[in-house]
Amino acid sequence: MTTERTWPDPEVAEDLAVLRREAPLTHCITNLVADNFTANVLLAVGASPAMVVAGEEAGGFAAIARALLVNVGTITPPDAQAMRTAAAAARAAGRPWVLDPVGAGALPYRTGVVAELLAHRPAIVRGNASEILAVAGAAGGGKGVESTAGSAEALPRARELAARLGAVVAVSGPNDYATDGNEVVSIAGGNALATRVTATGCALGAVMAALAGVARTPLRAAVAASMLFKIAAERAARSARGPGSFAVAFLDELSAAATEPGR
Amino acid sequence: MTTERTWPDPEVAEDLAVLRREAPLTHCITNLVADNFTANVLLAVGASPAMVVAGEEAGGFAAIARALLVNVGTITPPDAQAMRTAAAAARAAGRPWVLDPVGAGALPYRTGVVAELLAHRPAIVRGNASEILAVAGAAGGGKGVESTAGSAEALPRARELAARLGAVVAVSGPNDYATDGNEVVSIAGGNALATRVTATGCALGAVMAALAGVARTPLRAAVAASMLFKIAAERAARSARGPGSFAVAFLDELSAAATEPGR
Amino acid sequence: MTTERTWPDPEVAEDLAVLRREAPLTHCITNLVADNFTANVLLAVGASPAMVVAGEEAGGFAAIARALLVNVGTITPPDAQAMRTAAAAARAAGRPWVLDPVGAGALPYRTGVVAELLAHRPAIVRGNASEILAVAGAAGGGKGVESTAGSAEALPRARELAARLGAVVAVSGPNDYATDGNEVVSIAGGNALATRVTATGCALGAVMAALAGVARTPLRAAVAASMLFKIAAERAARSARGPGSFAVAFLDELSAAATEPGR
Repeated sequence: MTTERTWPDPEVAEDLAVLRREAPLTHCITNLVADNFTANVLLAVGASPAMVVAGEEAGGFAAIARALLVNVGTITPPDAQAMRTAAAAARAAGRPWVLDPVGAGALPYRTGVVAELLAHRPAIVRGNASEILAVAGAAGGGKGVESTAGSAEALPRARELAARLGAVVAVSGPNDYATDGNEVVSIAGGNALATRVTATGCALGAVMAALAGVARTPLRAAVAASMLFKIAAERAARSARGPGSFAVAFLDELSAAATEPGR
Repeated sequence: MTTERTWPDPEVAEDLAVLRREAPLTHCITNLVADNFTANVLLAVGASPAMVVAGEEAGGFAAIARALLVNVGTITPPDAQAMRTAAAAARAAGRPWVLDPVGAGALPYRTGVVAELLAHRPAIVRGNASEILAVAGAAGGGKGVESTAGSAEALPRARELAARLGAVVAVSGPNDYATDGNEVVSIAGGNALATRVTATGCALGAVMAALAGVARTPLRAAVAASMLFKIAAERAARSARGPGSFAVAFLDELSAAATEPGR
Repeated sequence: MTTERTWPDPEVAEDLAVLRREAPLTHCITNLVADNFTANVLLAVGASPAMVVAGEEAGGFAAIARALLVNVGTITPPDAQAMRTAAAAARAAGRPWVLDPVGAGALPYRTGVVAELLAHRPAIVRGNASEILAVAGAAGGGKGVESTAGSAEALPRARELAARLGAVVAVSGPNDYATDGNEVVSIAGGNALATRVTATGCALGAVMAALAGVARTPLRAAVAASMLFKIAAERAARSARGPGSFAVAFLDELSAAATEPGR
């Protein structure tokens, strides 16, 4: 039931080509650490980012944009209100949206907001193993945070969660997984230096949103984003002297991989 | 009526020399994506940035600083209040301020705030063609957003707007223009990679503010900032392998160009 | 009474080894300019950063984390509330916390908040000479901001402040000083390019917090962080072509220095 996929991959190539051609306007409500890096990652892969965060604007903009990312990393009550409005508007407009439940489980306030947001039916929920297990708990099926969990360990709960939500669940780790509750895709590769650069996971969620705006299915979007990040991290690590030069090379390699010949 | 200017330029050299010598304290209320990059750009060119964003502090600080930048990219109601207070204080203290109407036209809330802010008489309004056309509309003379507009296309409306506001209007694009309603200056150059790095336009507005604090006229400030950005982008593109290394080289080249011999 | 310390240093080596082994969860409430860079610096040295800024979460999280950084650089009233809650919770839980009074003295609102925060007994107060002199004034013993002050000039007041607060006071400048009111440690080195990259001082405060979570005394934490920053800046400057490449190399060198053989 688990398919392993590696770069290059014809479906991913197709989805990245559409991404470049359509440059989907991607609405992000993300955290203070990730705002700049996320915008740069989206530009590097060919999407068109827009961070619109006020409650006064988030609903209207979510209906204009091709896709929405909601990331609760530094959430405050005004942010939560904008996120609810934007998620509801995206759903009403038939636009896919991605939920990144950063820190869910460890912090009660945001865990509650995440549980509410699930009612607006995200197309993709992306997190590390602990966060996905926490969301599975928040959604009524589980035991909460298991911060020592690996991504493979979270997989059975991720599949149940995906089936229950009717969403794709993407679990990030040394190995990434994406599942729609039925099919499971495993993506190996990457490099440990990516864990030494802040907001790489947050930016991955944003690229999943951009791709969800153009790809045939949310599962394809999640898989394409993960594969692109894994290959860019592998290549960036070859020339990096540490986490600073890795982050720079990662943006260069994302841009190059997203436009490779045949794509 | 349109003058084309290219690097090196004696007036720009003079203004950059004053900038380096006086290191003007530049008060920025900008967006969450641009805060860090804008501060680094201002430091690279020799200005002294300070992001002071609370309503409790923005008015007092605008009167201390040499110049103010207001950028509505991720505006919320508390930001709007701080912006109004700061713009009013800057005007009362005789300090020049720059308005960057990011996303004006596309989003009604910020378009309204921008229209209010114009009453405080910015020295410079800087944006892309669509934003300038939107501001022209908001100011009572036009047809609103035209998102497909090029910078040359926006020029007639930019001149009218400048004359009506008694301000300089700067239109960014593959070619930059700056006009005080009478004279029009055209600045060519740059590199498309600059559009793949977030917040370069936002940072340009900030450098216009810093220069407006020291240059003889706002038009000179807008022209000097544009020329500096165009030459730095051209040079950075020579060594860049993608958008990540371009952004790094751009900061290095800004710093070098701002201190070139003869300056 | 003043000890000069230079890299390599066996105590610093020991503290950095503990930092790497324990990867202390470091709670940061910092400013909008510094959020991303601070997280990347903490990851580079081996700590585990978490920016948790809502009043609803800051208290609970400060009690879970190993240490807390409070930096008032872009403070707003909701931030101030979260800072008070977090500082009180850290103190109640016996966790060390670091106060970075950015801009204290120059701006009355934040100067008042800083004075209130001192009641929660920070383990370390870190700032430039002007800020430390302002805090000394706010704490009841002094004459306020002296923005032209050098770090050596602030030293007598820094010692008095440290003795009065029962805290370490760290003064940053071309020469760094750290004092617990009795012992004074002087750390030379570094490079002027560090002053051309925004948020390096803010990130230094964060590393002091991370180290305070694992080191035997706050004085050792402050000294180890300063020495690490000075050596990384010196090394980064060797290959840097300007402030952009310096910032990248600085992260690489921090990471390398924190894991040097013997550490």
